[in-house]
Amino acid sequence: MNDYFTSRHSVRSFASEEVSDALLKEIVDCAVHAPTTGNMQLYSVVAVRDEEKRKELAALHFNQPAASGAPVLLTVCADLHKFTRWCEVSDADAGFDNFQGLMYAFLDAVIFAQQLVTVAEQSGLGTCYLGTVTFNAEKIASLLNLPPMVIPVAALAVGYPSDEAPVETERIGSEGILHFERYPDLSDSDIADIYAVKDNFPANSGYVKEHSKRNLAQVFTDVRYPRGMNEEFSAPFVAFIRKQGFKF
Amino acid sequence: MNDYFTSRHSVRSFASEEVSDALLKEIVDCAVHAPTTGNMQLYSVVAVRDEEKRKELAALHFNQPAASGAPVLLTVCADLHKFTRWCEVSDADAGFDNFQGLMYAFLDAVIFAQQLVTVAEQSGLGTCYLGTVTFNAEKIASLLNLPPMVIPVAALAVGYPSDEAPVETERIGSEGILHFERYPDLSDSDIADIYAVKDNFPANSGYVKEHSKRNLAQVFTDVRYPRGMNEEFSAPFVAFIRKQGFKF
Repeated sequence: MNDYFTSRHSVRSFASEEVSDALLKEIVDCAVHAPTTGNMQLYSVVAVRDEEKRKELAALHFNQPAASGAPVLLTVCADLHKFTRWCEVSDADAGFDNFQGLMYAFLDAVIFAQQLVTVAEQSGLGTCYLGTVTFNAEKIASLLNLPPMVIPVAALAVGYPSDEAPVETERIGSEGILHFERYPDLSDSDIADIYAVKDNFPANSGYVKEHSKRNLAQVFTDVRYPRGMNEEFSAPFVAFIRKQGFKF
Repeated sequence: MNDYFTSRHSVRSFASEEVSDALLKEIVDCAVHAPTTGNMQLYSVVAVRDEEKRKELAALHFNQPAASGAPVLLTVCADLHKFTRWCEVSDADAGFDNFQGLMYAFLDAVIFAQQLVTVAEQSGLGTCYLGTVTFNAEKIASLLNLPPMVIPVAALAVGYPSDEAPVETERIGSEGILHFERYPDLSDSDIADIYAVKDNFPANSGYVKEHSKRNLAQVFTDVRYPRGMNEEFSAPFVAFIRKQGFKF
């Protein structure tokens, strides 16, 4: 097995070096060989490098350091606009303005985004997903001129890694992820066992102390992904998807 | 750039050789290093190899050859059950029963699925996504014992490739996928140029003739992904997601 897969890590601090047009094209030309629903390729990617525009886009990602410090921001979109336009010019009735249509394109876009990450990282670039892309989807769509039937679903900060040492992270392994034949009934102690790797990870104990919480789960629910924030951004995202033309 | 990325292709015909527990675990242990929202790892995968159960699951994928002929079927799920249970045992209020919660888990699951595909293919296995997973999501969930807050989002047929030659496919390249600074306004002739690679691909002309259509777009809209089918499966999938506990 290739060591890359177990040693890879996201990069949030970048060197100032530009990422060329040629390299971006090469990476995309590689990544389009990723699997796609019925070979429809229901995705697009918008690369922003212009300094002013990059600042505006980073602000819509709440100026997190990975966003404001990267030489290029890639916004991967679930795209049913192009395909629908092709159907129109071909006198064909595209019936994708529904939830399954959205799912085809969402799946395509995320598969493509992850292939883009792998190809970029294997080309020496560093990448970091910006999980904030769905929070300000409508404003991002407006800034990037996204037409109807196009939804931004994955944003990536991309650049050459700085010399800064990457932050070590822990992962739950196959024992908590892979189930044979059926999803198991998990007891409280099974749950505690699965998450022990996170509960006991030294850096995580630091976050717990820093935020005066009793355990790591409370850091997630009270600080990083509180209910209020998740709920606040849910309705606008659903409304935006509907506005873009998907009925559900 | 690694040649693998441009030469890879999905495999729909498998040798009878089993895929061992050890190999499945190794692949999953590699793929968990894929990026994940806030390191929450909101995904699970259920591996089905038991012959009777495999037949039942393949039937829910409409017995497409890749599904009925593979020695193992992997169902990758967006999983907020485990994480929510961990929060519960940690006296923390998990607020993920909304659309953004679903998005975190959906993104996590698809990123993980694609990393699984890459790792599996680089280990000598063949894979094929089964795009039908959302059509019968509720029945698949029942067969696999999926608890609330768990949604199957990507299914994979996996096995060692048979000797059958893979089907050559065409792809739109970066010229139709990668846009700089903004999504362009596409004229009818831009659209025709982007899709020329598909319209002119020899095998596609064969499908057009076989189905007595005037062009490839009509094969997609009238035969492969007709509006009626997309609409038929949309409402049940939305209803199932809500039934699993996500409010939107």
